[in-house]
Amino acid sequence: VPRGAGSKISRGVAITVADLGEFGLIAAIAALLPAGSARGVGIGDDAAVVGAPDGRVVATTDLLVEGRHFRRDWSGASDIGVKAAAQNLADVAAMGASPTALLLGLAAPGDLPVAWVEDLVRGLAEEGARAGASVVGGDVSGADSVMLAITALGDLGGRDPVTRSGARPGDRLAVAGRTGRSAAGLALLEAGLAGAPGAVGPSVAPAPGVPGPAGQFAGLLASHRRPQPPYACGPEAAILGATSMIDISDGLAADLGHVAEASGVRLDVETARLPGDPELRAAAAALGADWLRWALTGGEDHALAATFPPQTDLPGHWAVIGTARRGRGVTVDSRPADGLRGWDHFA
Amino acid sequence: VPRGAGSKISRGVAITVADLGEFGLIAAIAALLPAGSARGVGIGDDAAVVGAPDGRVVATTDLLVEGRHFRRDWSGASDIGVKAAAQNLADVAAMGASPTALLLGLAAPGDLPVAWVEDLVRGLAEEGARAGASVVGGDVSGADSVMLAITALGDLGGRDPVTRSGARPGDRLAVAGRTGRSAAGLALLEAGLAGAPGAVGPSVAPAPGVPGPAGQFAGLLASHRRPQPPYACGPEAAILGATSMIDISDGLAADLGHVAEASGVRLDVETARLPGDPELRAAAAALGADWLRWALTGGEDHALAATFPPQTDLPGHWAVIGTARRGRGVTVDSRPADGLRGWDHFA
Repeated sequence: VPRGAGSKISRGVAITVADLGEFGLIAAIAALLPAGSARGVGIGDDAAVVGAPDGRVVATTDLLVEGRHFRRDWSGASDIGVKAAAQNLADVAAMGASPTALLLGLAAPGDLPVAWVEDLVRGLAEEGARAGASVVGGDVSGADSVMLAITALGDLGGRDPVTRSGARPGDRLAVAGRTGRSAAGLALLEAGLAGAPGAVGPSVAPAPGVPGPAGQFAGLLASHRRPQPPYACGPEAAILGATSMIDISDGLAADLGHVAEASGVRLDVETARLPGDPELRAAAAALGADWLRWALTGGEDHALAATFPPQTDLPGHWAVIGTARRGRGVTVDSRPADGLRGWDHFA
Repeated sequence: VPRGAGSKISRGVAITVADLGEFGLIAAIAALLPAGSARGVGIGDDAAVVGAPDGRVVATTDLLVEGRHFRRDWSGASDIGVKAAAQNLADVAAMGASPTALLLGLAAPGDLPVAWVEDLVRGLAEEGARAGASVVGGDVSGADSVMLAITALGDLGGRDPVTRSGARPGDRLAVAGRTGRSAAGLALLEAGLAGAPGAVGPSVAPAPGVPGPAGQFAGLLASHRRPQPPYACGPEAAILGATSMIDISDGLAADLGHVAEASGVRLDVETARLPGDPELRAAAAALGADWLRWALTGGEDHALAATFPPQTDLPGHWAVIGTARRGRGVTVDSRPADGLRGWDHFA
């Protein structure tokens, strides 16, 4: 039974989702979002209506489970919203499409503060706006821990989708965005070298023996908490004639493995051509870690990897890192990349 | 780290999702589904591509949480798949659209048998096919309990969406499909008057003092486990000129309340006009319950309620149950329906 509004502040503590109830929570979320446009139907009806001018729609859904994909003590709600949006919007971009809409499924315990949900939605909407997408609908439910189910939609603009299966021997392999930075940020958090959620500087002293202030790694922490995929590079790659494309979510080597398998080629990464990242190298030195391993296996940066015909004139934000060749699998400097595995959510 | 295929049967027990790992599980799911059509891109790429010939797409997402929306000991996996699909597809139909696609987000503990997931997907695909929709993509993740996040897409066929806000005084209020049957089925399960999941007859003896065999209520148990919304009635209502429409998911009175509020009208239900349902009345008599309360407040049948201009010639599967009038809120036989509340997921 829904509780009356009078209970909202009855205990003098943070208002919780149980205080607001299902419909109150939906109203609180809707209040943070722009109303539906003249063409669309927004939050509050049975379903949303989103423009799909291409006549096809790109659709993807991803789950984020508390304790597995995020920790509320390591990331603020706004950060989690940004990250949840980013990983779905990057999937849309990786098809060569422009994101148009986001839907939010939120399962939460009743004692979750409404302010946390509001910050989550703000982060989701902010990252959506960066990619050109609006939050148009969703669902809320009770649960024992927080779980997010995000759906992103996108429009192909009349172009063919860029799948994983079109890479051909001789194609150039290129990456837009960086890899390994989210993994480095996570390693810094695990080492206790991070501040409170949302802070860009450290609020915890560095562990003994670790040189330098953790604040020098604020960029890596931000990369972990709020990945910023290069969305516009997705449609750009399609226009440039990309033969295959993928969002790097599980690690460069692992995700290139999917492209190699689907395309029936070998993808060789030349480590000397990976974009330089002084912050990544410094963090690796501070933690006794291997920056190259982070760059090859670290997930959740949501860079885009694509293959292009050899004569393609690529803009500078596409770093050529290797070549597609006859064969199978992924090689690093021509050696098999076995063992450079990504993340398995059930392992 | 993904485990090798060799571990699949190493313990001589049911193969679990942890045995298969993330990519093995996705492959097992994909094997149950038709390959992507020539126009679309199916499971296994960054995102799916779905036809949206209307140039707009209808999109909705719903969560189903174990222990809150379903119990694995009360419903089989196939039933849960049917129900999860049905509640989303009904939301699409309630906009006047034809369902086109489903996406499945599945969070599951590692010890969940793969066979359970396969049955879930079969149920999802079966109900999707009944509505004209294909399962085109999704995501899997580990979690402590089973949670489903279903997204459904649909096409408006060139028509305006039928929202909740267009009902006008004088409109006829009509329902396609029945209400209260899922609630009756749940009450029978709670009373122990049900068989094993998936069984149509009883495997448990009736409680002492309850007259008649529980098998006589097999239809109500099926309505609870595998609701069958009248999907085609959604586009039909739009073509007939429906002024508003909603999917009855939280209970007839509660959901009509949303339409009344959005449209700025009073909706009066005449109980004498509710469709007769001998099975519902018999179950109420057997359990000492009130069939009318079930019909007015029971959720999850996913009937469609719509308002039509008074002169509309309605086919027989639309039962006229009342009238839209000036005023606000929902009345039952002209008396306020306060207290006939629906389900709050956080209460």
